[in-house]
Amino acid sequence: MNFNEKLIKAAEDNGSIVCMGMDPVVEKIPIEGKPEQAITKFFSDILEGIVSEDVCPSLVKPNYAFFAQYGFGGLRALKESINAFKKQGFLVLLDAKRGDIGKTSAAYAKEVFDFWGADAVTVAPYMGSDSVGPFIDQCENGFGVYVLNRTSNKGAVDLQDLKVDGTPVYLKTSENIMKWYKPGTGVVVGATYPKELEKISRYFVGTGKDVPFLIPGVGSQGGSATEVVAALKSTGNKIPLHRINSSSGILYAYKKKETDDFVGAAIAEMRDLNKEIGKW
Amino acid sequence: MNFNEKLIKAAEDNGSIVCMGMDPVVEKIPIEGKPEQAITKFFSDILEGIVSEDVCPSLVKPNYAFFAQYGFGGLRALKESINAFKKQGFLVLLDAKRGDIGKTSAAYAKEVFDFWGADAVTVAPYMGSDSVGPFIDQCENGFGVYVLNRTSNKGAVDLQDLKVDGTPVYLKTSENIMKWYKPGTGVVVGATYPKELEKISRYFVGTGKDVPFLIPGVGSQGGSATEVVAALKSTGNKIPLHRINSSSGILYAYKKKETDDFVGAAIAEMRDLNKEIGKW
Repeated sequence: MNFNEKLIKAAEDNGSIVCMGMDPVVEKIPIEGKPEQAITKFFSDILEGIVSEDVCPSLVKPNYAFFAQYGFGGLRALKESINAFKKQGFLVLLDAKRGDIGKTSAAYAKEVFDFWGADAVTVAPYMGSDSVGPFIDQCENGFGVYVLNRTSNKGAVDLQDLKVDGTPVYLKTSENIMKWYKPGTGVVVGATYPKELEKISRYFVGTGKDVPFLIPGVGSQGGSATEVVAALKSTGNKIPLHRINSSSGILYAYKKKETDDFVGAAIAEMRDLNKEIGKW
Repeated sequence: MNFNEKLIKAAEDNGSIVCMGMDPVVEKIPIEGKPEQAITKFFSDILEGIVSEDVCPSLVKPNYAFFAQYGFGGLRALKESINAFKKQGFLVLLDAKRGDIGKTSAAYAKEVFDFWGADAVTVAPYMGSDSVGPFIDQCENGFGVYVLNRTSNKGAVDLQDLKVDGTPVYLKTSENIMKWYKPGTGVVVGATYPKELEKISRYFVGTGKDVPFLIPGVGSQGGSATEVVAALKSTGNKIPLHRINSSSGILYAYKKKETDDFVGAAIAEMRDLNKEIGKW
């Protein structure tokens, strides 16, 4: 199976297109202990809860930075968490925004797919074809590669909105991505810019290729899942190929809900997000 | 001291503007053993040799990908090598091409400066101000941040050469960098594109600010140190602020020179590169 087929199967099996971001911040994790132990237990408790309640995301996205900030302990927690989720059959996207010259990208691809054992990775497009190529080559082995296209942050406008003969740089990036494309190649498009999301969706649908979207920015960043789904549908895009990501919105829902039951709160939050996304 | 001052002092102390890239590839390292031990010993032998011969680069640049591809053993070798070079007073640039939304970049900055203990880092510009900001904020604490501007690889043209109202994207990135600038903020500009290097050098000299260049691409990638220095001088740029990087050209010089003495060959290669750069 290529990564697109894996994504569609996972969405149908779990009845969800939610991606659960894993952004550990020890101050927000209600478990005592060193970062390694607290983070590992936090995610294994959530894993146990979502599996037993059968409210599962169809992709999980550990964010490299949030683990790596705690040094080797954090990195060991990353490895243990990836292993635990994979053991239960989850697809794992390592959000690491990798990218360098060709031979260095090849080393990063080894890191991500061989060492960390991720199913997919996020990569940066600034350095072009031979930078993204060694990752996309791995699509042939069933892996997924999400290239940054229109990101969800405020600074996205600084470079991505510049106009090249009337076309914004982010759409030029979309065009580049289609030159590099193999099935399993996807894009990161923020939920915080629904008009841009619609334009990008229309562009990719027009190419006739399946290009999975990873859509961060709902919840704490202010994007709306309802708007995202409307934009995808109105442009004729296939919903189960795509993922709407929520990280702290799910993980730390217990704070907003004023409860100690962080697992229950995360499950409730995922149910709400599934409802907001609606039928597809 | 801010990072610019550290760079100038290191260049003058060592009589060199060479940056030694550290790209470990176990198949090329003539030391038996597991990756962790082989890599650590390889770099500690080189360190001992360059210090005792007093032929030192004024910056060393471990490349994250090449260590991380060997998993935890490689990452431990990275930590041990950074510690060893720092102990001898070297400035260490962690080449990791980091960059994400603001709060994630803040976690990456903690990773790079607090955990790895690097003096500087390379970052990607695609996500804009709030992505680069948490790194540049650390310039106030004496750290350096090199933003990708015009990279040395073939694919650099795909995005960086697109024209925005007649101005290439790479120069738009230079303009963005000046909006974000604090002393210690530098740029990555490949030696393989001397005309673009000259344009960028002219632009930054024109701003009146000191912007250190990290210039990869000489040696195995085909760029010429003589041309680089000529481009910097012709545009009125200060030489000791900048660094010309060579990685495999230095590390694996023993292969080209057909000797087993990899330390001696690396030293000879650095002497040659210093000569090619000439007086400044």
